[in-house]
Amino acid sequence: MTRAAVLGAGSWGTTFAKVLADAGCEVVLHARRPELAAAITDSRENADYLPGVRLPDRLRATADPGEALRDADVVVLAVPSQSLRDNLAEWRDLLPPDATLLSLMKGIELGTTKRMSEVIQEVTGAGPERVAALSGPNLAREIAEEQPAATVIACSDADRVAQLQAACHTRYFRPYTNPDLVGCELGGAVKNVIALSCGIAEGLGFGDNTRASLITRGLAETARLGMALGAELTTFAGLAGLGDLVATCSSPLSRNRTFGEKLGRGMSVEEVQRSTRQTAEGVKSCRSVLDLARAHGIDVPITEAVVRVCHEGEAPAQMVREIMSREAKSE
Amino acid sequence: MTRAAVLGAGSWGTTFAKVLADAGCEVVLHARRPELAAAITDSRENADYLPGVRLPDRLRATADPGEALRDADVVVLAVPSQSLRDNLAEWRDLLPPDATLLSLMKGIELGTTKRMSEVIQEVTGAGPERVAALSGPNLAREIAEEQPAATVIACSDADRVAQLQAACHTRYFRPYTNPDLVGCELGGAVKNVIALSCGIAEGLGFGDNTRASLITRGLAETARLGMALGAELTTFAGLAGLGDLVATCSSPLSRNRTFGEKLGRGMSVEEVQRSTRQTAEGVKSCRSVLDLARAHGIDVPITEAVVRVCHEGEAPAQMVREIMSREAKSE
Repeated sequence: MTRAAVLGAGSWGTTFAKVLADAGCEVVLHARRPELAAAITDSRENADYLPGVRLPDRLRATADPGEALRDADVVVLAVPSQSLRDNLAEWRDLLPPDATLLSLMKGIELGTTKRMSEVIQEVTGAGPERVAALSGPNLAREIAEEQPAATVIACSDADRVAQLQAACHTRYFRPYTNPDLVGCELGGAVKNVIALSCGIAEGLGFGDNTRASLITRGLAETARLGMALGAELTTFAGLAGLGDLVATCSSPLSRNRTFGEKLGRGMSVEEVQRSTRQTAEGVKSCRSVLDLARAHGIDVPITEAVVRVCHEGEAPAQMVREIMSREAKSE
Repeated sequence: MTRAAVLGAGSWGTTFAKVLADAGCEVVLHARRPELAAAITDSRENADYLPGVRLPDRLRATADPGEALRDADVVVLAVPSQSLRDNLAEWRDLLPPDATLLSLMKGIELGTTKRMSEVIQEVTGAGPERVAALSGPNLAREIAEEQPAATVIACSDADRVAQLQAACHTRYFRPYTNPDLVGCELGGAVKNVIALSCGIAEGLGFGDNTRASLITRGLAETARLGMALGAELTTFAGLAGLGDLVATCSSPLSRNRTFGEKLGRGMSVEEVQRSTRQTAEGVKSCRSVLDLARAHGIDVPITEAVVRVCHEGEAPAQMVREIMSREAKSE
């Protein structure tokens, strides 16, 4: 039986812990706050992040990372992207030496412009064959309710990716494999930025034509950047690219889209941040995505516009009109 | 000044007639029913298909096709796909000999599996250089309300496509050009079928993860078929492919999605047809898309499933589970 440690008890970490348990793994979920860990173990519910969802008996929670990581075959990382490095530094010496490290995170590190798998390798010293990422159209709440969903697991090591696939395959959750780690991670990171732009347009009162245009151009800029970084074009056409992008940009459950919607309605970034307890990754990673694109000479107009709105005080209405009216004669 | 005749006064034909008038063309809109034509001319509103939208003064309506077509530089065809052939046979002798024929229609002819531009050429004898198609994320209602939208015009003749582009470019409507007529028409036709599948899933209670997966796989099957027919892959990644697909599959304004939703809720095809006055193109063209795919040996599992539900009595719930759980190991 696979032993899995899930580090991070937010909505997606908790949901994925449930998926692993439903697939037959023994799962320990690590929550930083002891009262949350105790409440999850006692009530079989994560009332803070996934209220109303009954968690399987095979899932335990603990605030002690050493207890969570002991003898784990698979270590799932599900913390906010920008705190990964600090968290990992703390957990590094507790990691079982041959465990597979699976990232659920979707961001690019500020300052270094590193993908999450790169941060993991750098901090833990793990070889690339031990590091994997999971990404797809995976709104946590829907999966927690056992609605059918598909996802993509990327890892360079065929044996480990097959082990991961088996470890999380349930009746309602279907993992596909893909060797393109760069493409999967980039698709996940940039879609949060595009979702912010869709939310902004929505908040301003624009409809589905505008959103569809933003998604189409957003995927194009993601793919351009990905190709420059060595990713495969087909990854962006698949579940971890287009699939994840469409789900995130369309759903009222998406934090990034919802965050953007509030910006579009006239709230400032600070006001929106105060009104929500969850992280909208795109607000931070839009800057690192832009840095990455500039370092590779790639044009990312939507990301640029989101950075201007989130960090440079540009009015949202200005932004959407600009994007929709860019000069272009042939497609 | 460009003179345009728009044949077909449904919601999209009427909206596009408004776009042409707003872009400075002299526009005559042909409605089959004299009372509708008179009402549009008198009240500046198409209360049947576009209630509440004020039409420009430069737009006239008539029930006389000869009057509409007299001296037209551009003839816009906006009738239901499956009635195009009969309509054209009636109008053929009235068409100005050098007019550009622009199709707004999104379907594949039953029986012949021909695209609309092929039917136009066959019935009118027009050369391929005279025939164009327009397609993109263009929900009629949003454009009628002058929300910003982009579209793609495809035509093999560079001069004519430039003329069309100028004829419909307004502050809120931005046409791009693309030489890939096959890809644009196919994207438009198949998206109605995929939208039906999304509606069915929605009606059954499935959420955004499922829809995003259907869109992703739907685009893949459209692109596979398109490539077999000689279309360009990039067209499917653009506004006439992905853009139109996302808009149609997401919007409550989409007839095909709404039709599917009612099927998913348990109504029969006949019951839904009785409850709506508008055409859901996908119900008919799913069969011709499937015939086309079979003739070229292309696998189109979503289209097949929609045909089974719409024409062979398969239960919608069965269909969605089957699509979501297809065997596949790598993406």
